Amino acid sequence: MSGWIGSEADTDSSSTVSELSLKPGIINDQGTQTGRKITVYTRPLARLIEQLQRLPGVGPKTAQRLALHILKRSEEEVKALAQALIEAKRQVGLCQVCFHLSAEPVCEICRNTNRDNSTICVVADSRDVIALEKTREYRGKYHVLGGVISPMEGIGPDQLHIESLVRRVSQNKTGEVILAISPSVEGETTTLYIGQLLKPFTKVTRIAFGLPMGGDLEYADEVTLARALEGRRELD
Amino acid sequence: MSGWIGSEADTDSSSTVSELSLKPGIINDQGTQTGRKITVYTRPLARLIEQLQRLPGVGPKTAQRLALHILKRSEEEVKALAQALIEAKRQVGLCQVCFHLSAEPVCEICRNTNRDNSTICVVADSRDVIALEKTREYRGKYHVLGGVISPMEGIGPDQLHIESLVRRVSQNKTGEVILAISPSVEGETTTLYIGQLLKPFTKVTRIAFGLPMGGDLEYADEVTLARALEGRRELD
Repeated sequence: MSGWIGSEADTDSSSTVSELSLKPGIINDQGTQTGRKITVYTRPLARLIEQLQRLPGVGPKTAQRLALHILKRSEEEVKALAQALIEAKRQVGLCQVCFHLSAEPVCEICRNTNRDNSTICVVADSRDVIALEKTREYRGKYHVLGGVISPMEGIGPDQLHIESLVRRVSQNKTGEVILAISPSVEGETTTLYIGQLLKPFTKVTRIAFGLPMGGDLEYADEVTLARALEGRRELD
Repeated sequence: MSGWIGSEADTDSSSTVSELSLKPGIINDQGTQTGRKITVYTRPLARLIEQLQRLPGVGPKTAQRLALHILKRSEEEVKALAQALIEAKRQVGLCQVCFHLSAEPVCEICRNTNRDNSTICVVADSRDVIALEKTREYRGKYHVLGGVISPMEGIGPDQLHIESLVRRVSQNKTGEVILAISPSVEGETTTLYIGQLLKPFTKVTRIAFGLPMGGDLEYADEVTLARALEGRRELD
């Protein structure tokens, strides 16, 4: 009967008991004729705000701003966004070879015959492939683990694409495997674990850690500085 | 033929001529066998990122983060978001009486018989209704202008819901009209214009401007301070 929901103000301390039951974004079907319940968003708008709030980094205020913006766009534009969402989810899977995001069984990087097939760069996530591709420096192939070894979160080597990596390295003539995994505790564990596994088959390297470009030595943390010292190279 | 697009890195200064033709988020159908073009996003992902970038406050990095997050969600969740978008756009229109966002011909606030029908609060935008409703202080009705008078942007009184406001005020027994329009140059113009129009029919007031709660007098700007002085009230 009511096309409305009640939504608490973000900063509110004077709620009555009946109002306290209304969480922001939660649809409430109770009668709205009490005169006390506040009716802020019309129902389809409330649903949209609730959905938008589930996105990472989107709070109630951002969700409201996005939703009101969307209502001002044309129906075609909104449909295009909705369709892009559904199609991306339906069509994008993982490459059978390297487990990078791909709309086809084997991804474009793996299919590209101009790329160096003898070098494999191992990363934790597809995001890392995207970041590395944007540097335009790397011309080899990739292997996406799908995470890092984390006993705390119950992620062991079996949950990652490590077995397929070992098979790939041992079956092909892989000249070098570059481990490009973030230097967290879990990342280090994963790097060392994979390094041990692959050493019998190929040369294994890892990316350099040190002072970031533009970084100030004075403000670098000790661990970074120690890594930078440790990884020093002779001047050409 | 290619299910991929090329996308420039956000910070890139070493583009070759052929790469310069690729703008971020623009789908490019040229052959991908040159070995020089970078292939970062699979096509449905690129489309989604492009669509998300059209939202306010969403740049390339945020769009990528949101898109990759969406790919990790279940198909049901993504469908729910897509549906919420389409339904909000299709179902939410403007209230025939007050022009606030509404999924029904007359909005819940206008239909609510427990609200004071003799007071109308005039605001520029539906966002302002939402903000005022969240205060839980106001129990009257609203009238949403749909903007403010702005000769610079070619918005005159005819483009706003002013005529309907005058009709509403003159036909009903409106005891008070509260003008709650932001104190910008355009807002002031609108406030004065509407004030003149409505004075023959009813009492017209405007919301107070002054020091914000928690604001520091020392750091308030001169205009705010002048308004605060001007709007001083006798202690109870």
